[in-house]
Amino acid sequence: MRSFAGRDILSLKGFERNEFFRLFEIADRLAPIARDRKRSDLLKDKTLVTAFYQPSTRTRLAHEAAMLRLGGVVTGFSDAKMTRAGDFYQESIKDTVHMLEYYGDVIVMRHFKQGAPQEAAKWASVPVINAGDGWGEHPTQVLTDMYTIWKEKGTLDGLNFLLIGDMRMRTMHSMSYAMAQFDINATYISPPEMSLLPEFKEEIDALNLNYREVDHVKDAIADADVIYMEPVVQPDYTKARDERSGDVGLTPAQYQVTLDVMKKARQDSIILHSLPRMDELLPEVDGTRHARYWEEAFNGVVMRMSLLASVLGVME
Amino acid sequence: MRSFAGRDILSLKGFERNEFFRLFEIADRLAPIARDRKRSDLLKDKTLVTAFYQPSTRTRLAHEAAMLRLGGVVTGFSDAKMTRAGDFYQESIKDTVHMLEYYGDVIVMRHFKQGAPQEAAKWASVPVINAGDGWGEHPTQVLTDMYTIWKEKGTLDGLNFLLIGDMRMRTMHSMSYAMAQFDINATYISPPEMSLLPEFKEEIDALNLNYREVDHVKDAIADADVIYMEPVVQPDYTKARDERSGDVGLTPAQYQVTLDVMKKARQDSIILHSLPRMDELLPEVDGTRHARYWEEAFNGVVMRMSLLASVLGVME
Amino acid sequence: MRSFAGRDILSLKGFERNEFFRLFEIADRLAPIARDRKRSDLLKDKTLVTAFYQPSTRTRLAHEAAMLRLGGVVTGFSDAKMTRAGDFYQESIKDTVHMLEYYGDVIVMRHFKQGAPQEAAKWASVPVINAGDGWGEHPTQVLTDMYTIWKEKGTLDGLNFLLIGDMRMRTMHSMSYAMAQFDINATYISPPEMSLLPEFKEEIDALNLNYREVDHVKDAIADADVIYMEPVVQPDYTKARDERSGDVGLTPAQYQVTLDVMKKARQDSIILHSLPRMDELLPEVDGTRHARYWEEAFNGVVMRMSLLASVLGVME
Repeated sequence: MRSFAGRDILSLKGFERNEFFRLFEIADRLAPIARDRKRSDLLKDKTLVTAFYQPSTRTRLAHEAAMLRLGGVVTGFSDAKMTRAGDFYQESIKDTVHMLEYYGDVIVMRHFKQGAPQEAAKWASVPVINAGDGWGEHPTQVLTDMYTIWKEKGTLDGLNFLLIGDMRMRTMHSMSYAMAQFDINATYISPPEMSLLPEFKEEIDALNLNYREVDHVKDAIADADVIYMEPVVQPDYTKARDERSGDVGLTPAQYQVTLDVMKKARQDSIILHSLPRMDELLPEVDGTRHARYWEEAFNGVVMRMSLLASVLGVME
Repeated sequence: MRSFAGRDILSLKGFERNEFFRLFEIADRLAPIARDRKRSDLLKDKTLVTAFYQPSTRTRLAHEAAMLRLGGVVTGFSDAKMTRAGDFYQESIKDTVHMLEYYGDVIVMRHFKQGAPQEAAKWASVPVINAGDGWGEHPTQVLTDMYTIWKEKGTLDGLNFLLIGDMRMRTMHSMSYAMAQFDINATYISPPEMSLLPEFKEEIDALNLNYREVDHVKDAIADADVIYMEPVVQPDYTKARDERSGDVGLTPAQYQVTLDVMKKARQDSIILHSLPRMDELLPEVDGTRHARYWEEAFNGVVMRMSLLASVLGVME
Repeated sequence: MRSFAGRDILSLKGFERNEFFRLFEIADRLAPIARDRKRSDLLKDKTLVTAFYQPSTRTRLAHEAAMLRLGGVVTGFSDAKMTRAGDFYQESIKDTVHMLEYYGDVIVMRHFKQGAPQEAAKWASVPVINAGDGWGEHPTQVLTDMYTIWKEKGTLDGLNFLLIGDMRMRTMHSMSYAMAQFDINATYISPPEMSLLPEFKEEIDALNLNYREVDHVKDAIADADVIYMEPVVQPDYTKARDERSGDVGLTPAQYQVTLDVMKKARQDSIILHSLPRMDELLPEVDGTRHARYWEEAFNGVVMRMSLLASVLGVME
């Protein structure tokens, strides 16, 4: 297995089974620090640079919290539009990275443009972690999700995954690459205009992923061990939540998980959602034994601890 | 007395006399750390999460500085509009809190909506501190103010408070609840459209607060031990300070504290203002023995140190 | 020599030769911490307050990274427009500083208005570092640049500086004051509307700076030991980089440094640019032995370490 020390985390394509398990084991060893609400001094010498060209408070804070729990410190920016115009938003990734690499010891980058973290990694003398690049990938989220499932199920093999959402999105890309490393049957459900793109299907075919596409959550819910969700509608961001009365009920029933839908589900099926949600996942489900999205949030910090400790070479 | 460990600080309604004094004592014990410009290691294991749905740099930085002085670390967001649309600004408090509680060990929340920190506290596994909720309350500011007065006067009982400002505002609400726990005579002065609301009067009547309302600062200045001020006019935020020539002189004389007004005040009266100010409090007063707003700023850090150390259970 | 402990760093006017060298020496002693990617505990008791009334991510992060490398912590704001309107953007520097001085132990201020850090220093009980004030000065950048040149050349005396950019800008002001302390010949090149202002020429004449102004980089490149650059055109900030096709080729050839221009340059000449750049400095030059802008970026952290350690009195 390749060492994680000094390595960039850019994509889950080509990420191997044993690399998942290595990160899971390290996560297990570090989890007590977060659970006991402590700070270790594992990374007390290290500085994390957050380079968020787009705001993503959840992803940014999960990385920051992870770094702080490991004793490290954080600097960076949370929205490139808030930087001096022409500063980071406008200039080349190469010029920016030749600054950022001196401000800390690992760079976590969210970028509106697919491939930007890859370009950054080409120039940086420190590891670059992709925190979401346009339509590209979102490897740290999916590592979190796989870790959550592994913790709940004890295995990733032999499971049926039901995936609901926009299949053109980065999280679904990373998840598809990840599933292909395990004995997982994937069922994709999305509105037609959000279905798997032909060129992406070629990729997952080449990886020998066992998958099918269905139209209605009811047609697949009975078999699912894992229900993996993302929104299929976008809120009207011009209105505050309280004014968005029209937003409620926007998700068509065939892409929605409700208490009624869950009555047809397996007793031990679990639901994951990285949030925020629209009405594709109703709050009435939150109190059931199926919901695992709060655990997913906790694991979001633990997995980032595992990643930071690994690429910074303090855990092997 | 109820323990502060693990407790939410949401409102000063029902806050008891001896609870004020407990926080004052802890503040006195922690103040030397801030005065000597040191960091202690009392909270070296702990992370503060700042959840500011509205910017409030003073309140946010006072909490951050307090956490840092105690050896802790900080993560969070300073303006929800800067987060990904739909991220924190749009989603339910429940969903957001089930993330934030994993990013740190205490949440300080400023929200544009009254009651939001209370809602957050319902779901959070960590203490929630209300840093101002809409028209609701601002308990940490008023604890700071009461501590400042107590330090200056040696007591809170037997004092006459003159309150000038918008009586519908959160700070005045928290201050009214606080005054009711002591032998304080309150005199409220505000423009008619900013006077105490009938339902709030019922509340402070029920608390047996001894108060009156007058029209002109000159009618009450001679008796005041404490002059507690807030703006009664709002600046035109669309213009930079230098362009706002028209803003100067906006505050009617009856709500204004000037050198001339202070000539009629008691020799030992003190002025508090949490700032920023318009022209209700003229800079010509800054150099007099009455001004205590800079001490208030220093105490703003010290009181937040006391609160953080208390709710995180390291000081009793 | 005046001690640096407790001192404000506001301007390079009146900064003496031996003060430059003292900061260089301290920088040399601290550089290994940054180079080895460690944190020292020299400033573990100290908090830096960043007061950026305008965003400037590079300058802010260089200071933050420096503080973190020295074991200190950071709080502050990165754009006053993001603070509560009327909070810091609108109020007087005096009122703001009488808050900020309690939030930490040194204030680094960027302000859109010339003279603001000087005004802040008048009121602050802690050192104030000018991180750029309007058209005024940018002393920490130029200290970085002079340190970079000194490291590369072993001396600052007997060198020819070629300065290309907008001579009305703060960096050029600080650099001119700095050059006057050494045996440096300065050649300024700028578009006519960006040339040295008459009142500034009087200042550098009074400092006995040896300088000339020429029209075309080709007329001066052969003599230059140091080529010191800034943009002479501004990007169209309303467009994202990818859309700004029209921006390319905006800089007239006489203010541009290209591979072709560098063929006429001295073998050992070096190019400095604090970035970001437009097309005044072409990427084709990056791979040549002349480029020193990445070293400049690294030194930007090291020089800020030297400044923070010096004004906070832990290095003499």
